[in-house]
Amino acid sequence: MIILGIDPGLATVGYGIIEYRGNSFTTLDYGAILTPAHTEFDRRLISINEQLIRLITMFKPDAAAVEELFFNKNIKTAISVAQARGAIILTCAQSGVPTFEYTPLQVKQAVVGYGRADKNQVQQMTKILLNLSAVPKPDDTADALAIAICHAHSNNSVMR
Amino acid sequence: MIILGIDPGLATVGYGIIEYRGNSFTTLDYGAILTPAHTEFDRRLISINEQLIRLITMFKPDAAAVEELFFNKNIKTAISVAQARGAIILTCAQSGVPTFEYTPLQVKQAVVGYGRADKNQVQQMTKILLNLSAVPKPDDTADALAIAICHAHSNNSVMR
Repeated sequence: MIILGIDPGLATVGYGIIEYRGNSFTTLDYGAILTPAHTEFDRRLISINEQLIRLITMFKPDAAAVEELFFNKNIKTAISVAQARGAIILTCAQSGVPTFEYTPLQVKQAVVGYGRADKNQVQQMTKILLNLSAVPKPDDTADALAIAICHAHSNNSVMR
Repeated sequence: MIILGIDPGLATVGYGIIEYRGNSFTTLDYGAILTPAHTEFDRRLISINEQLIRLITMFKPDAAAVEELFFNKNIKTAISVAQARGAIILTCAQSGVPTFEYTPLQVKQAVVGYGRADKNQVQQMTKILLNLSAVPKPDDTADALAIAICHAHSNNSVMR
């Protein structure tokens, strides 16, 4: 199955697209969608929408895995990320890609094996599992790949 | 000009469509898009998206006016409304309808004339200005009509 991992945000949307077959991974693409701060809000959502559609059209993912929102950040940031996240999930649904949500704890457990793993451990394991030469930058991209791995390792990936 | 006022939410999206011409209003439609709580999140966003598109196709609004988010509600509600709001603004942008944002203070000032007006005063003025026989229900619908009036009375309505 092909999985589109997404780390949602308004200025930066991390994404990673992996194929999971016979217990092994192939990394198809990863990167970040960036929207400039001085652009109007609806234009930024459209930009995210269009670039996601381009990825979905190109790689035809069977599922999208999206990180659940923290509530411990400052509220203004949380609201901003939440609005982008709504646009991202709508985009996936419009394209017929079912979305699955994972908490940071679930991602750590799925990738490293325990929920108290730190960011660096998650990134190193992501790099090893995906056979990458370096940890992808920015962090949002590395996070998106980890979320995609989490979905591959979860029961949801065989549920539908 | 035709204005689509929207009071964003996940369970209830209030909407009101008015025409503003020569300083007077014609009310074209109003109501609420409801999404059931037990439905999957992406299905709820798609449902909002499809019903909004239906309204936009039918009434061809020149602008959408959307209430800005409070930050004083509980954070979980705020995140939920914010995600729906992102999907709503993306839908308008996809349909080529420019969106404008107004704070509750701006709405009160535009509809009643002063920012400390209470909910009942806003609703009564909305009813009078739109020549309705009663205050629309639910409150989300009345709020959406008030936001549409706010846009009509604002400088933005002649800017574009």
